[in-house]
Amino acid sequence: MLTQDSKDVVICECFCRDGLQHEVNTIATRVKVDLINRFSQAGFARIEATSYSNPKVIPQFADASDVLRAIHMHKNVYYKATCPNVRAVERAVADLELNHGANEISFLVSASESHSLKNLKRSRADQWQNIADMTRAGLYKFRIIGTISVAFGCPFEGYVDPAVVLSDVERFYSLGIKHVTLGDTTGMATPKTVRSLYKKMFDIADDIVPIAHFHDTRGTALVNYMAAYEQGVRYFDSAVGGVGGHPAGLKYGGGYTGNACTEDLVNLFESCGINTGIDLTALQEISRLCENILGRQLNSHVAVSGWNSLIGA
Amino acid sequence: MLTQDSKDVVICECFCRDGLQHEVNTIATRVKVDLINRFSQAGFARIEATSYSNPKVIPQFADASDVLRAIHMHKNVYYKATCPNVRAVERAVADLELNHGANEISFLVSASESHSLKNLKRSRADQWQNIADMTRAGLYKFRIIGTISVAFGCPFEGYVDPAVVLSDVERFYSLGIKHVTLGDTTGMATPKTVRSLYKKMFDIADDIVPIAHFHDTRGTALVNYMAAYEQGVRYFDSAVGGVGGHPAGLKYGGGYTGNACTEDLVNLFESCGINTGIDLTALQEISRLCENILGRQLNSHVAVSGWNSLIGA
Repeated sequence: MLTQDSKDVVICECFCRDGLQHEVNTIATRVKVDLINRFSQAGFARIEATSYSNPKVIPQFADASDVLRAIHMHKNVYYKATCPNVRAVERAVADLELNHGANEISFLVSASESHSLKNLKRSRADQWQNIADMTRAGLYKFRIIGTISVAFGCPFEGYVDPAVVLSDVERFYSLGIKHVTLGDTTGMATPKTVRSLYKKMFDIADDIVPIAHFHDTRGTALVNYMAAYEQGVRYFDSAVGGVGGHPAGLKYGGGYTGNACTEDLVNLFESCGINTGIDLTALQEISRLCENILGRQLNSHVAVSGWNSLIGA
Repeated sequence: MLTQDSKDVVICECFCRDGLQHEVNTIATRVKVDLINRFSQAGFARIEATSYSNPKVIPQFADASDVLRAIHMHKNVYYKATCPNVRAVERAVADLELNHGANEISFLVSASESHSLKNLKRSRADQWQNIADMTRAGLYKFRIIGTISVAFGCPFEGYVDPAVVLSDVERFYSLGIKHVTLGDTTGMATPKTVRSLYKKMFDIADDIVPIAHFHDTRGTALVNYMAAYEQGVRYFDSAVGGVGGHPAGLKYGGGYTGNACTEDLVNLFESCGINTGIDLTALQEISRLCENILGRQLNSHVAVSGWNSLIGA
């Protein structure tokens, strides 16, 4: 496995959480464990492994602790678990104390009130209280990721004021959370708004680490990732086969809401000479495996067409 | 209909030729005519209408003259017909003299010898002779477009020397052909190679008009179109639903080879504040119509998810 130092960018593979969250069929624990091990072997330095959500609400992740107990933990790899509330953080802490927990957890806030109410079932004010409580329960134990949904536009409200997003970034930062993800939840970002918002985000503090999490709802994920890269962003989220993504679009008329596709993103970066540290042969095998697991063709161009043969040339 | 002057970019709608060329079913002439009329009504200033190819080789375009005779010709719109040989140009001239011909024709050269032999069944040297002959038959009668295939990489040879591509551009220019398309036939271009090649192309002559024709083989069409735009390119080719594209990929193991999708390209440009001059409501209707005509879901994200609601905001 390549070490993190040899990479130009860090791609977080989200298939096992964001990808599976809205799948109807429950995937067996051993299948998830095998996938996560393959991801780390293939060179992913960040892997979204599971969620400590309420198993009654999201049965797919009822096996969160089992998955984390069974995987082979590579050093230098961050295994992320999403946490919706203090109870979830407490579960993460308990697993960590038994030496088989995630070393990265993430908290979510929506940049718009409507999206917050519909997606998180809380007002923004309540969710910020929740985040403060979760942070208190988890700080110094994990690397914490703050994620801001609908940062580039809201399916319900349309325009989202960048000032609100930036104040959310500052709020995370003031809680000690330096890794902050801007989420383009329903594919409304443009290269222009991406450059502008990340530029301002870098201005907030020298040690802030911006992460890009863009959806391919309107086919713009790669163009926006390239814009973010050019603006200095080095952390990117994607999922094998472009699986998963935010459900609001589906529930409220937004249509296709898939994550950016890892294979296609890796192909783009590598063909530009940007080193992802990912083993292409292993990723291609994983890509086929994920299609077998879900029993359908997924949204990867590279899975159909193969890698750009100019990679490495 | 918006005039050309009000546009920031000129998108050539390729569904009726490049899109249909490899469709198994022959589309009725009246359906093609209706589509072309809808394209001009929707604001497209360039429409790839048909091909004067040999009807025995490509039966889909046996009705080339009939299509051109039946459409309502909007002034300010260029109706393009592709021409593979002198016989084709002579047919185009004959139709033009009867006042129902295309006002734009295009000639193709491959930047690699292997692709030329496999796709055009001629060596590059023979094809340049053919282009010289065709130009003699067509010059001053039409706006002529020179198109260079595999300009950013060849599925057979891999790397294509930019110097070869640029000398092909110069060769077209020396024949009096100022509109030159660079084709990314199997999706091997990157933002880096796109910027570099168009920059050098602009340096060849002040009055050269570069056109971008990129395929979404590996999901990179939009990111490359944005790079071309940022480099000053204002002419772009795409097809409704991302239909069609070069067959070599399919025949020789390259997989999915679709054109860039018009709906997604228009959405990207418009959401960046780049005026395409296209009526979004009309295009959405055309998008649905094209899916009905071909009887399957096509490759448009916007057809599923709708326009970015921030367009015009």
